[in-house]
Amino acid sequence: MDISKHGLTTRAADFATWYQDVIEAADLAEHGDVKGTMVIKPYGYAIWERIQSILDKKIKETGHQNAYFPLFIPKSFFAKEAEHVEGFAKEMAVVTHHRLKQDAEKGLVVDPEARLTEEIIVRPTSETVIHTAFARWIKSWRDLPVLINQWANVVRMELRPRMFLRTTEFLWQEGHTAHATEIEAEEEAKKMLAVYKDLAQNFFAMAVIDGQKTESEKFPGALRSYTIEAMMQDGKALQTGTSHNLGQNFAKAFDVTFLDQKNEIQHTWMTSWGVSTRLIGGLIMSHSDDKGLVLPPNLAPTQVVIIPIWKTEDQEVLVQKAVDELQNKLEIKEIRVMADRRKHLTLGERMYEWEKKGIPVTIQVGPRDIEQQTMVAIRRDTGEKQIMSLDKDTEAIKELLSDIQVKLFEKSEKQLAHRTYKPDDYQNFQAVIDDGGFFDVSWCGDAVCETQIKEETKATIRCIPFNQPTVLSPCFKCGKEGIHQVILARAY
Amino acid sequence: MDISKHGLTTRAADFATWYQDVIEAADLAEHGDVKGTMVIKPYGYAIWERIQSILDKKIKETGHQNAYFPLFIPKSFFAKEAEHVEGFAKEMAVVTHHRLKQDAEKGLVVDPEARLTEEIIVRPTSETVIHTAFARWIKSWRDLPVLINQWANVVRMELRPRMFLRTTEFLWQEGHTAHATEIEAEEEAKKMLAVYKDLAQNFFAMAVIDGQKTESEKFPGALRSYTIEAMMQDGKALQTGTSHNLGQNFAKAFDVTFLDQKNEIQHTWMTSWGVSTRLIGGLIMSHSDDKGLVLPPNLAPTQVVIIPIWKTEDQEVLVQKAVDELQNKLEIKEIRVMADRRKHLTLGERMYEWEKKGIPVTIQVGPRDIEQQTMVAIRRDTGEKQIMSLDKDTEAIKELLSDIQVKLFEKSEKQLAHRTYKPDDYQNFQAVIDDGGFFDVSWCGDAVCETQIKEETKATIRCIPFNQPTVLSPCFKCGKEGIHQVILARAY
Repeated sequence: MDISKHGLTTRAADFATWYQDVIEAADLAEHGDVKGTMVIKPYGYAIWERIQSILDKKIKETGHQNAYFPLFIPKSFFAKEAEHVEGFAKEMAVVTHHRLKQDAEKGLVVDPEARLTEEIIVRPTSETVIHTAFARWIKSWRDLPVLINQWANVVRMELRPRMFLRTTEFLWQEGHTAHATEIEAEEEAKKMLAVYKDLAQNFFAMAVIDGQKTESEKFPGALRSYTIEAMMQDGKALQTGTSHNLGQNFAKAFDVTFLDQKNEIQHTWMTSWGVSTRLIGGLIMSHSDDKGLVLPPNLAPTQVVIIPIWKTEDQEVLVQKAVDELQNKLEIKEIRVMADRRKHLTLGERMYEWEKKGIPVTIQVGPRDIEQQTMVAIRRDTGEKQIMSLDKDTEAIKELLSDIQVKLFEKSEKQLAHRTYKPDDYQNFQAVIDDGGFFDVSWCGDAVCETQIKEETKATIRCIPFNQPTVLSPCFKCGKEGIHQVILARAY
Repeated sequence: MDISKHGLTTRAADFATWYQDVIEAADLAEHGDVKGTMVIKPYGYAIWERIQSILDKKIKETGHQNAYFPLFIPKSFFAKEAEHVEGFAKEMAVVTHHRLKQDAEKGLVVDPEARLTEEIIVRPTSETVIHTAFARWIKSWRDLPVLINQWANVVRMELRPRMFLRTTEFLWQEGHTAHATEIEAEEEAKKMLAVYKDLAQNFFAMAVIDGQKTESEKFPGALRSYTIEAMMQDGKALQTGTSHNLGQNFAKAFDVTFLDQKNEIQHTWMTSWGVSTRLIGGLIMSHSDDKGLVLPPNLAPTQVVIIPIWKTEDQEVLVQKAVDELQNKLEIKEIRVMADRRKHLTLGERMYEWEKKGIPVTIQVGPRDIEQQTMVAIRRDTGEKQIMSLDKDTEAIKELLSDIQVKLFEKSEKQLAHRTYKPDDYQNFQAVIDDGGFFDVSWCGDAVCETQIKEETKATIRCIPFNQPTVLSPCFKCGKEGIHQVILARAY
């Protein structure tokens, strides 16, 4: 059978179904009632709250302030930047009316008399509305830089939705900044990409490649887009964070100007950057296994679950007391810990649940442990059991969590290295692309080659890595002079 | 003139304009581009973040979990609960299309071919979508209670918007719970109202009256609604938090059932409760003055601003060093402190800015202070200056902040007491209602009296206070037997 003993479809059998099964098994999310929407259930949302708290701190430490801009954008705003609207027009939710009414025959209907004079767009991203505000806020060079971030929901009407990865509504943060010079805007865009890389690698334990998007893959309206790309267990790429140097395109479209120190009017230089709940999709496909979710300790809302075991009432008193003490000691070490004291579930049922939910370490404490002053720690990533001292090994638990974090990242790094190929030629690449992986190839920079590759293989140039070789081979597609080493892959 | 020396319209001259002026002077928010929407600027948002962090902790401590439900609700969901839809239908934003397109003549237009088969409502509140999820989640008594909260944006198309108080889109938290019994639901609704009262009184320093809403004022679809009502400086009431026992109305409409311990199918008992960015409107109208915003220290994102003053470079070195040390000492005491070291602004300009922004305490440190080891602390609420020891008085600053918090609450309590009247009769009430205030009167419980009062005076029954007298007078409107003592007032 292709179903694991935990009831999940195996990765080997069907990766896409396994992905859905993990979401269900770990109780992260479920489909909403409007097509493409998603209910983020408490455990999924707790992961998002962890991401928010880690990233919000980094965003503030780098000098940004949070604010909040309207969900609703006048349709006319999108007409101002041609590339931008071209990129989003096909997936916009349009509000046309402001009232419902009861109809004697048809029941609850849209009131035709309540048509809006101008249609409203539910924000797919907020450049247009934020730059309109920046035009009001910015007068002189003293007002710059403006460094803003918002945590918000955005809507893109998805034809082929997939939970966390592509949903009609998703949660994200979007940073928007305005600068006096191109250099500052470029530095900002690179700095925030580095923040995302740090988040991905040190919290998600996800190895990523950072680089620049090609012209055809960049953000609609941007000058340059930067990205971090991670490899999922099926060898496909996931763009996990992007940062854009918008140049002066939006400043010109939205008339964002300032008086410089020579008292001359200049357009500002803008950036925008964001990560979304899509990161949770990446998290699942990076580490999870056929038993369910696997969470890196630095990201896990709960790092340790203690499971007390007893038979008699006398045993219960002793075990519960020991568990209280242990929980307390771990909390003092700033470990996020809970005890699962549910009596109507067996040890097996409780273990099974926390395995599916990817808790990094579970600790069992039973009557024999009390006698021998031991506890049994089980790590989720390898399943390995360790007998530890109940009394003395709280520091060892902290080290165990660190070790899991390190090992997950090493595993991700190894997979990225092992499955990044340098194909001999285009034919060789075409022969193996169905098996997934990243392809590290030389490219002539011509969009014609890029389009042909995409049409013939469904692989796209994920990025032009920052880390470029000193000597380039000829373009692996057309044989002309190579100007960039690029990463090709099929992507989510 | 009716303009204060800080450039604000005075409260005495025009309270509504003063309110807008405070928002502008403190740089809290500005109008958005779609009618009724609002941009919450960084300082306004920092206050919202403080509210979120305080309240989120209380919500979790009372056993609730955060989750996230879709912004989009199918129109048909609203047809299920008659009172509920009746209450919200007139202010719903309706999404009818999922795409824009370029038209050669008209430019960017709604694509008529992209009409949705069922219209989507942008959530005005989430009972319908959350109860639909509860119907999926809840099977047995073991699944109860379900205690959920979400932080979200909601939309109600406002005809007469006012910043923070009534905006087309606003931010809030909405709690939604399901219980096995009516008693538990009632306890939950009361418990959460008490949480709101604690938030209002101990953080907002805002005296409130807690009580029950009348039938005509309750939440559409609820069994009973509870409220906390605060008095603004113009004597008008502001509903600052509400909690609803929804009974089984929604459970029946959305088919939320469970198997009880006798294996019989029962409908759950629901509650919902929320506070919103409207609280910031209440904050402004409770404490602020003709100089601008006044923030209670427990809520202020920044409690203390230190302003260094110097003339010579030698002085600068000494002053900056002392300010560093002071800032450090205050941070150790967990005081939220910043130093305003801007050189292009005078002392006066800097003081003026922090006064307008309502910083509870500003501290000036200049060269003479360094010589004498002093600092000058100015409290925002009274304007009183105190000379303190630069070295030793960090604890005194903490006490000063506590004192401001206490005094603001006492002032709010006094104003509530002094301006709550017991009119001799209805004529007396009609004669003075234009001057504002709360009216503590006896009511027969008849909706006819309630409606007449509203039509004749624009005052509404804000609540039936929990704290009821033992003996009631006859209804002050009709003279029949009084069954409730109620608070009447004009309200925002």
